[in-house]
Order: sequence, then structure tokens, then C-alpha cells
Amino acid sequence: MLQFILLSWERTNMDLELLGTSIIGGNRGAATKDTLRAVDPHSGQPIEPSFHSATIAELEQAIKLAAAARREFDTCPGVKRAGFLRAIAEKMEGMGDLLIARATLESGLPFKRIRSELGRTCDQLRQFAGVVEEGSWVDARIDRADPDRKPLPKPDVRSLKRAVGPAAIFCASNFPLAFSVAGGDTASALAAGCPVVVMAHPAHPGTAELAGRAIAAAVNKCGLPEGVFSLLFSNGYELGQALVRHPDIRAVGFTGSRAGGRALMDLAAARPEPIPVFAEMSSINPTFILPGALAERGDEIANGLHISFTLGVGQFCTKPALVMMAASAHRNEFSERVFALVESSPGGPLLTPGIKENYERGLAGRGKIVSGRHGRAEIAGLAVNAAAFQTTAEVVLRTPELTEEVFGPTTVLVNADRRDELLELARSLEGQLTANIFGTDMDLSDYADLIDILATKAGRLVFNAFPTGVEVCPAMVHGGPYPATSDPRTTSVGTRAIDRFTRLVCYQGFPQTALPDELKDGNPLQLWRMVNGKVSQD
Amino acid sequence: MLQFILLSWERTNMDLELLGTSIIGGNRGAATKDTLRAVDPHSGQPIEPSFHSATIAELEQAIKLAAAARREFDTCPGVKRAGFLRAIAEKMEGMGDLLIARATLESGLPFKRIRSELGRTCDQLRQFAGVVEEGSWVDARIDRADPDRKPLPKPDVRSLKRAVGPAAIFCASNFPLAFSVAGGDTASALAAGCPVVVMAHPAHPGTAELAGRAIAAAVNKCGLPEGVFSLLFSNGYELGQALVRHPDIRAVGFTGSRAGGRALMDLAAARPEPIPVFAEMSSINPTFILPGALAERGDEIANGLHISFTLGVGQFCTKPALVMMAASAHRNEFSERVFALVESSPGGPLLTPGIKENYERGLAGRGKIVSGRHGRAEIAGLAVNAAAFQTTAEVVLRTPELTEEVFGPTTVLVNADRRDELLELARSLEGQLTANIFGTDMDLSDYADLIDILATKAGRLVFNAFPTGVEVCPAMVHGGPYPATSDPRTTSVGTRAIDRFTRLVCYQGFPQTALPDELKDGNPLQLWRMVNGKVSQD
Repeated sequence: MLQFILLSWERTNMDLELLGTSIIGGNRGAATKDTLRAVDPHSGQPIEPSFHSATIAELEQAIKLAAAARREFDTCPGVKRAGFLRAIAEKMEGMGDLLIARATLESGLPFKRIRSELGRTCDQLRQFAGVVEEGSWVDARIDRADPDRKPLPKPDVRSLKRAVGPAAIFCASNFPLAFSVAGGDTASALAAGCPVVVMAHPAHPGTAELAGRAIAAAVNKCGLPEGVFSLLFSNGYELGQALVRHPDIRAVGFTGSRAGGRALMDLAAARPEPIPVFAEMSSINPTFILPGALAERGDEIANGLHISFTLGVGQFCTKPALVMMAASAHRNEFSERVFALVESSPGGPLLTPGIKENYERGLAGRGKIVSGRHGRAEIAGLAVNAAAFQTTAEVVLRTPELTEEVFGPTTVLVNADRRDELLELARSLEGQLTANIFGTDMDLSDYADLIDILATKAGRLVFNAFPTGVEVCPAMVHGGPYPATSDPRTTSVGTRAIDRFTRLVCYQGFPQTALPDELKDGNPLQLWRMVNGKVSQD
Repeated sequence: MLQFILLSWERTNMDLELLGTSIIGGNRGAATKDTLRAVDPHSGQPIEPSFHSATIAELEQAIKLAAAARREFDTCPGVKRAGFLRAIAEKMEGMGDLLIARATLESGLPFKRIRSELGRTCDQLRQFAGVVEEGSWVDARIDRADPDRKPLPKPDVRSLKRAVGPAAIFCASNFPLAFSVAGGDTASALAAGCPVVVMAHPAHPGTAELAGRAIAAAVNKCGLPEGVFSLLFSNGYELGQALVRHPDIRAVGFTGSRAGGRALMDLAAARPEPIPVFAEMSSINPTFILPGALAERGDEIANGLHISFTLGVGQFCTKPALVMMAASAHRNEFSERVFALVESSPGGPLLTPGIKENYERGLAGRGKIVSGRHGRAEIAGLAVNAAAFQTTAEVVLRTPELTEEVFGPTTVLVNADRRDELLELARSLEGQLTANIFGTDMDLSDYADLIDILATKAGRLVFNAFPTGVEVCPAMVHGGPYPATSDPRTTSVGTRAIDRFTRLVCYQGFPQTALPDELKDGNPLQLWRMVNGKVSQD
């Protein structure tokens, strides 16, 4: 089917032919000689066309346009930005199977998975549209004047969140749509009112161009200034570094490796004027299987674990990569079931040659320390087999490399014979996106101390479910202490993510006509506000 | 009066005798040989007693106690933390004139000013008590499960803000009470549920000891774990650096110089696990006097400006240090009035020998570039005269050092003959705590473009008032882009400040009994929450 779709695309959708050049506001960049091509993970062969690295002059032009667009975009009514976000979703949906086919081709992920990822991406855009249309996200506060207060009169003070300014967004390898050009970081930055300059991920440049064209078309359709969006291709790190260093960039969004995220954090912190980097980096999503659950439904949990750590060929930031089990008569049975599932796994292609190389190195390293079992499927291109390892708490506690993230379909099962070992393991963990507990209600009360420790380690605690498949909703937290992310005050999934791209602005003593609508008397936008310390919609 | 109070103190309040040692949880530190003494700004002479630098072992003990107190303090009911904050205020008020007298002696600031600062400090503590007692600050969100959703069931997801963990607080020189041991940073960190380790400022160690004893007494009275509060004295930078580097410290609050704040930001960013530094550093609070206001009430504004930039001997972070005037027939008259006021100023003592040295160097530097006039009072100890300078927009635009902060009673008047010069001046500014506009309503509409620029530069825009005297209230923003602060998403004054010391924690699929009360069905704490995307108190 994929070949057929790509063929029909070439024949009938000349307007969607990939140009391979950057998008600089309303224009396309130059066809420079420095190029890159995506790799088909199934075959390991390069995919046409070539994509042309942007020049430093193009980068500067993109940022200049973004800075010029800032005011109009930041101050336009929420309902207009909502329309823009919805228009992006419509434009992407309008590309339909062609966009899905290209993302499938470049990522090696199944068509069905990418189709559902497109749905998620459009849903995110529409959720943020709802948030900015409703408008209360600005956290408007009003403290009215009291000229008669003694000893000094009380001034009229009002404040709200506003867009921080142009944002740089780095695309993720593992979600060619939902965490990439039109993904959650871009959606939340645009929702806040920040123009964005996106760095395409070299693993899926064609998908990036299509999504970028959808956004550029929506900018045009909604009559917004062209600088609201630019997309840069690059065959190296220098351009991304220049983007983060540029004085007009005010915030950075990143999803990727710990090394990559930390490098951007360090760059941003060393600027003459430091800016925040919201990096989502590294997590092993420690999973604790408590005795009651193991006895009640060990097989079901083993099946779920196998699905969860091999989902997307194990390339989820929420993959459960360290599974700890308290002493239990059912533990061996559980491990054997996981091993059997691994051995019959079909394997699958990783996203890039680099990820494959890291996976194989990671597995080889683990194999020297602990025993493991792996799948035996025949593999080609970038494909690999799943692998599971087994060891003891004692070994993990003295071998920190077993708690490092290895991207790909692998996990480590850990037997903790003593309760204090389980707690010690939990205490020894770095910051995590999630921590997961399988148990009965009785387990939960028996292990309240474990939950307390995990609540200091992870942004999200999951009870009796696997952490993969992050719900997009107002309460979601896809964040956590370093190195899971760079800032545990925030999230990169769910509507709270909009807060990252803001700053506070306060107006004291201003006449009504000069105030933003959000802060006016009479509440013309019908927001939930805090007035004299009380929450109301008045 | 001051002498009399200090004398009665010594005679009748032996229990308030200063020991000069650090406070390490429930114990006092050692009387080490490395000591410091405060200096009386009026006489320039040292004040007894000596204060003993804490040792690294004491620092580690303080942090160990803080880490041990974390869980109990973070999870105790808001009403208990509220009682604790109020108890601190009561203990400080109970010290009454003795505390005020010591702060007056060490700061050289008037007794009346310090008395009102004590009132402000206690008011801050009580405002945060109100916030945590009411409880909605945790921004609780609930998205209920929908097991029938297709294609996948929707999980139950709930999240809230929780304390980030032990915080390091550095005291300010210029507010011995309100931005020091029991000041805004400490109050907001304690309110959030973070144990604090405070570094006393060497300019007012006696005031620090008294405030620290008030907090330690409140910890004891409220039955909280001793590690909730420690206070360290230090005669150098090393101890503060070790504090920021310590792995158990999760956030830093700082008010002080740009160099000092940046040094801590760099240290924290270079940690293996970076942590946020909330530094409030440097601002010149650009003030624009528009033609209508100058014509209508130039004298009144000149009087107000003089009061504002000499208030607290010019040692406010919100001092208006750069005053820009559009072309106007009334401009010279305005400047002459400011000069006349400066020349008849009584002068006053600066807080420390270092601040005096910087002030004199700053004035000498300015005197080489632009013309100025200064007061002629006879001065002793650390006292200095006020000074005002006058120049043109053109000179300021090519002389960036005129826009650097000089702590002390000085300001620069700037004539901008052309409208575009005024806008260019605004655009050239670094990040600011405040920007201030004096004008008529007509001026405000004529200069809408100026306001737009200033809204990108400052955390607070003030119309027809001076920025000194920062109101403590829910809507206040005492923040702004770097170098005004390290993080323009936040504020260090007003109840929004509590957000700095938090992280997000999310619970997915948890049974009711295992959820924090803030997230339980039935809303037992009666919080404002967001449930399925809707704000309500249900």
C-alpha cells in the first residue's frame, strides 16, 4: 500500500512535491550544496530527495522575521491564534495519507501507528486552540486600588502571562509528527503567542517539510505575519547551536538524548543573557511489580510489559526499562514469560543508524554484566531484535550503567529479595518521567514508603498501567527531575505545556483603555481571574 | 532612642543575647575562629559581637537535616504550614523594638523605615499563610477516566504542584528583614513546603540571628522537624558556593548584585544535576516623562523622583536610575528642580564599605562622561551625597555604561529631542524589573509604541507613579527579563512567588485512598481545581 500511495502522490500531487529546502517565513531557502537524505530503516538505503542545509544567513533571516512577527502574534486575540492552530491541523489532515506515508517511510514505523500519531498531533493542536480561545491560561490577576489605605494608598496592580518571544524548537527522532515540526512543543509555543523557528530532525526531513508547509499555509490563510514560523534543515550541529545562541531567541524546546539536551542547556546557560531550555531527555521509567499483583495477574503484566517496552521498537521516552520485583513465589514464572515473549518477538527497525549502533553497544555492554535473552528474527536494514536481561538489586546498586537509558526494545528485570533493597533501588534512581507501580490496594498501602520515594523521583506515578501512551490532557505531566527533563516545574505533553513559553507582565496604575483585554474591568473575555485574591469569572 | 533600646536589651533580655553562631536545625553551630562583624554605617565602626563562619561540616549537617525534614514538611496540611508562617511573624513581632533596633544599627537605615519593613515582612508571611491555608495554589487538575473511549480507554490523570525540596536562600544587603532571613524568598519557599538553608548577609548578621531564632522557635512551637530551617554565617563566598553545589539542594533564591547572581546561576547550571536559581539582580528602572505630564505637573514629578531615587539612600532594586524626557518647553525647569533638590539633599550612609566604594567609583566614571550635580552635606562613616547627571539620548545610546546600575542615591536625566530617539533608547535597554511612564491619557495613546517596547523589557509597567515601594499582593510581579532576574516566568514579591519552589507531580490510575487530599474526589479541601478542563470549586 505504501508504494502505491507514494506513487499516486508523485503522479497526482505535484503541489506536494518535496523541494528539500528550508522554509524561511513566506519563502523557501536556497538549494545549498550541503545536503542530507533520510534513511529507510527497513532497507538501510537512502531516500530521495536530498535536503539542503540552511545557511547562517537564512537562520538569521528566519529569526529576524520571527522577532518582527512577535508583537502582532503575541497581542492578537486568542480566538485568532486558536483559528490558526486549527488551520494547521486541517492542513495536515488535508495531506492525509501522503503525509502519513512519508512519515512511515522515513521512520520505519507502521502506517497505522503513524496514522494514529497524526491524529494525536492534530488533537494536541486543537486542545491548545481550546485553551487559548477560552483564555484563562494567562492567569490574570487584579488587585484593585484602595486610595484610603493607611499609611499608604494601595495601587491598582494587574498582571498576566504573556508570550516570552521567538522560540527555537528541536524535533525528536522518535515521533516524526507528535514531537516534531507541528508537535507539542511547537503547538504550545504558538499557542502562547511565540513565533517559532524549528530545526528539522535529519531522520525525517520529508515529513518535516510537509508539516512545515502545512504550518506555513496556515500562517498565510490566517493572515498572520510570515515570521510566525520557519523551518530549517541542517546536516550538523552548528546551525542548531547558532539558533540557541542567537540573542533574539527567548526559549528553547527540545526532545532527544541526554547528551544533546545537556549540550543545549549548557549553551543557553552560557549566553550573555541566559534563556530557558525545556529539554525532555532521558528516562528509564522504573517499574515496580509488587507481590499481590504478581500473584494475581503476573501473566497479564508480563504480556503488557512486553508490549510496552517493544512498542515503537522500544523508542519511547516512557519505555519501562528497569522492572523491579519484590520477593515472590511467582517471580520466576513472570520472568520466564517475559523471556519467552522476547524470544518470539519479530524485531523491528530502529529509526537511524546511530540509534542502532547505540542499541547494539548498549546490549553488548549489558551482556558482559548480566544474563539476557533476545529475539531471533531475521533482520535487515536498521532492524534489531528485542532483548531482556535479568539481575539482582545488589548488582544494579553497584552497576549504575544498568540504569542508563538504552533506546530500543530492551528492558532489565531486577529481583529485589529484601524490602530494603527495593527502597534503596528507588532512592538510587535519577530523575524520571514516570515511575510505575503494579499492585493490589493492599500492596499500595504496604509500600507507602516506596510511593513517597518515587514521588520525589518522577513527574508521573502510574498505578497498574504502563507509562507508554501518554494521554494529552490538562492534568498530564510529561516532565520530571533532571535528567528526565531540564525543568520539573513544567511538562511537554498536555495543556500545562503552554506555561513554558511565557513571562509575567504587570500593569500598575494603567487606565482601562491601555490595559490588555484580559485585565480590563468587566472581564470582557469572561476569563477565570483572581481579583483581590479571590478566584472568579466576574 | 536607639542607644537606650540597645542598653535595655542587654540588661533585660538576656535570652535575646546574640551568640554569633550559625543555627543548624535545633542546635547552634560552633564558635569558629573565622569571624565577621557588622559595620555601623553611620560611624564606619565595627559592631559587636563577632559572628562565626559555619564549617563545611555544619553546612552538610544543615542540608542533611533539611533533606530529612522534606517529606514531613511537604506533606503536612496547608493549615499547619500556615500556622507555622504566622508563628514566625508573631515571634518576630515579639522581639519588637529590639529586632528593629538591631536592624537599624546594622543597616544605618532609619528606625521608622525598619519598623515598617518589619511590618511588611510579617505581612508577607501572613499573605503566604493565607495562600497555603486556602490551598488552590497547587493548581490541582483532574481528568477523569473514560473506560469506554475508542480506540483506547482514557485513564484517570491527576496532577498538582508540590515542593521541589530543600532550598538555599541568600539574603539581600538592602532589606535586612523583608528580603533576608525571614523575607520573601524564605516565606515563599517555606509556604511551598521546602525546608530552607539561609546564608546570612554579612552586613547585618545580628538581625539575621534574631530573625533566625524567631523561625527556629516557630519550628519548635509548631512541632515541625528541626531541619525545616537552618541559618549559616560566612565570612566569604566558599560556603555559599558549596551550598549551591550540594546535590540535596533543589532550588536557590538570591537577591543582590548582577555579578553575584550570575555567579550562582553559572554554578547551578554547571552542576551534574542543574537546579534553578531565582536571582533578582540588576535594574535601572527606566522612567519616561512624556510631554503632557511634564507640562501639567513637572514640579510634582520632580519632587517624587527625588524622593524615589534617594529613598533608602538609593539602595532599592526599583530605584529610577535613568529618566528620559521627550522634547518639551518644561524640561529644563524640571531638571533644574531635580538638581536643586539634590543639592539640598542631606545625604546618608550606605549599607557597606563595598557599596560605598562602588558608588563613588560609579559617580567618578559618570562624571567623566556627563555633567552632574551633587549634594553638599557633611558626611561621616559610610555616608555619601546624592547626585544627578544630565545628558542626551545620543550620548546614552553610545555609552552603555550609563545604563548600568549604580547602587546609591543617583540618577541620570536624559533629554531625547526626537521621538525616534526615545523609542531607540527603550529598545536598547536590557531587561528591567520596572519601566515607568508619566503622562496624560493622551500621552499614553500617543506613545502606544513606546509602551509596547517597554512591555517586552520589564516585568512591571508603572503609570504615573514611582516604582519604589513594591506592593505585596497576588498580582505583583517583581521580576523581569535578564539581568533584572534570572527567570521572567516568576516574581520574588507577591504570592505568585510560591510557584518558584515547586515541581509538578502527576498520579495516574491511583485509588482514592492513595491520592493527596488536593486530588481526591469530593474535593475535601474545597480547592479551586480544573476538572476535565473546567475550573470549579466542586
